[in-house]
Amino acid sequence: MKQKIILDVDTGIDDALALLYTIGEEKADLLGVTTTYGNIDVEQATRNTLSILDLADATKVPVYPGSAHRLSSKEYHRREVTTRIHGQDGIGDTAIHQSTRAPEKQTAIDYLIETALQYQKELKLVCVGPLTNLAKAYEKNPTALLNVDEIVIMGGALTVPGNVTDFAEANIIEDAKAAKRILESDLPLKIVGLDVTMRTILTQKETNKWHNFGNEESQIIAEMTDYYFKSYQEQLGMPGCALHDPLAVGIALYPNLAKTLALDLTVQLKEPAEGRMIGDYKKLNRGTPTTETCLQVDHEKFLTLFMTAMEKVLH
Amino acid sequence: MKQKIILDVDTGIDDALALLYTIGEEKADLLGVTTTYGNIDVEQATRNTLSILDLADATKVPVYPGSAHRLSSKEYHRREVTTRIHGQDGIGDTAIHQSTRAPEKQTAIDYLIETALQYQKELKLVCVGPLTNLAKAYEKNPTALLNVDEIVIMGGALTVPGNVTDFAEANIIEDAKAAKRILESDLPLKIVGLDVTMRTILTQKETNKWHNFGNEESQIIAEMTDYYFKSYQEQLGMPGCALHDPLAVGIALYPNLAKTLALDLTVQLKEPAEGRMIGDYKKLNRGTPTTETCLQVDHEKFLTLFMTAMEKVLH
Repeated sequence: MKQKIILDVDTGIDDALALLYTIGEEKADLLGVTTTYGNIDVEQATRNTLSILDLADATKVPVYPGSAHRLSSKEYHRREVTTRIHGQDGIGDTAIHQSTRAPEKQTAIDYLIETALQYQKELKLVCVGPLTNLAKAYEKNPTALLNVDEIVIMGGALTVPGNVTDFAEANIIEDAKAAKRILESDLPLKIVGLDVTMRTILTQKETNKWHNFGNEESQIIAEMTDYYFKSYQEQLGMPGCALHDPLAVGIALYPNLAKTLALDLTVQLKEPAEGRMIGDYKKLNRGTPTTETCLQVDHEKFLTLFMTAMEKVLH
Repeated sequence: MKQKIILDVDTGIDDALALLYTIGEEKADLLGVTTTYGNIDVEQATRNTLSILDLADATKVPVYPGSAHRLSSKEYHRREVTTRIHGQDGIGDTAIHQSTRAPEKQTAIDYLIETALQYQKELKLVCVGPLTNLAKAYEKNPTALLNVDEIVIMGGALTVPGNVTDFAEANIIEDAKAAKRILESDLPLKIVGLDVTMRTILTQKETNKWHNFGNEESQIIAEMTDYYFKSYQEQLGMPGCALHDPLAVGIALYPNLAKTLALDLTVQLKEPAEGRMIGDYKKLNRGTPTTETCLQVDHEKFLTLFMTAMEKVLH
């Protein structure tokens, strides 16, 4: 049976790859996509999402626009480094066809709640942007989200340093307050952080395959991913990119890909550790944790699954 | 067969408990004890070690004095908080009989090297103080230490905050430079940090048993441990103390007590993260890690083993 999922994205190159991977995955039933700010502002994230879905002929998947900025702010400021990583348009400044499809009228928050109430244990949420939408939905209707099967979050760095600061990963620090509320809740969380995503690397070897498919869509996605490689090479000296967001989807669909640690977490809010995700001493000796953090991953197996699904979409 | 071990201690109340536990453990063959500064200066740590061994009738176990201060300093400064935790004398300011036995002439460094060369895979080192002795021994003869079965280190905090700063645990920050050298080495390390020791709690319920044994030795050790409880209550609001150093011995003797994460680690040296133990990105995607960090522990089983061994020593 297919796994019903909602993807919450700030599309973003690796968000785009996560969308394409989900569409190509025979195990996934993508009910809808909710959008948020993060890698780019929410309007552009929504447009990017629609364009990527069009490219993959997934024109029936509804897209629900969500939060425009973090809980504690009234506007969104894009980090300069984010432009270098994801491009001006957020998806590598390629010649991708702009979708003419309109997003849904319903908000991301209401769609998350409504779908959670409808499908409950049949549904997994996969959140790969800042956790603002999730925090708002949880505040508005805590019970709805408590009853889903699992909420898989791409975010944080528990056993390795962060990527925005030495302590913090991008999705968590982008709205540390929202992340703290979610991580300190009793929601059934699975964390897919830099601990495992920085071990799950896509290289030119793989994008060359997409170039060689020789159609326009595969060219565009190969070019988009090559753009992403540049910042990894320049900033980290890495010959490839981490599959952050796709891996979160992969682990939602194939839980055995990862070995996890059961530990309740919190998020620190004060400098210099703002956005640091770390074990919560208050809950260390109290019963069964509700959060599992992925610390090991079968990255080779995931890469095979990923490339198989991508070939289905791009060939 | 008994497990040959050397204990490297900065005796300290929980070091004293670790010594007593080791002596009472039927699985342990305590070849010798090396001392260092940390909870107290090295001279007093050596005297405390001898007095504790006397109390347990372990008068034949040789004690080798080691480092007096961290690698990057010429003297030892005791933290004020350490006096409050461990007492002026380092072991709770009880009426313990002062040993008249002299320590060995050989240094801790040379004893560690010589014994490692002699017993190799038959030997485990259990280091529960700052890692200065270990770093010096490794510098003087790297091969000797590389060939031991395992080096179990009580230190660090990987998935929870530190206890000296938000980032650093006491043994690691006391000589962060030595810890960095050891953790970045290829030595066969097992880390027993706050991740597991803060879940392994001794309470008044247990020390009351020792009070009730009604002999002088058991009274002294119960009073010493009650002293340790005070700082946990005052500073952390915890009704008991963490069995930091005894747990390291327990995991050396019974590896199945803990679930571990294989991950190569480093130690940060710069403020504000000085003494932070964290995954090493440089080695994340390179082969098999040489370091295992304990992240889960069967604390109930350990507490039973600990109390059984302590009863043998104190009854």
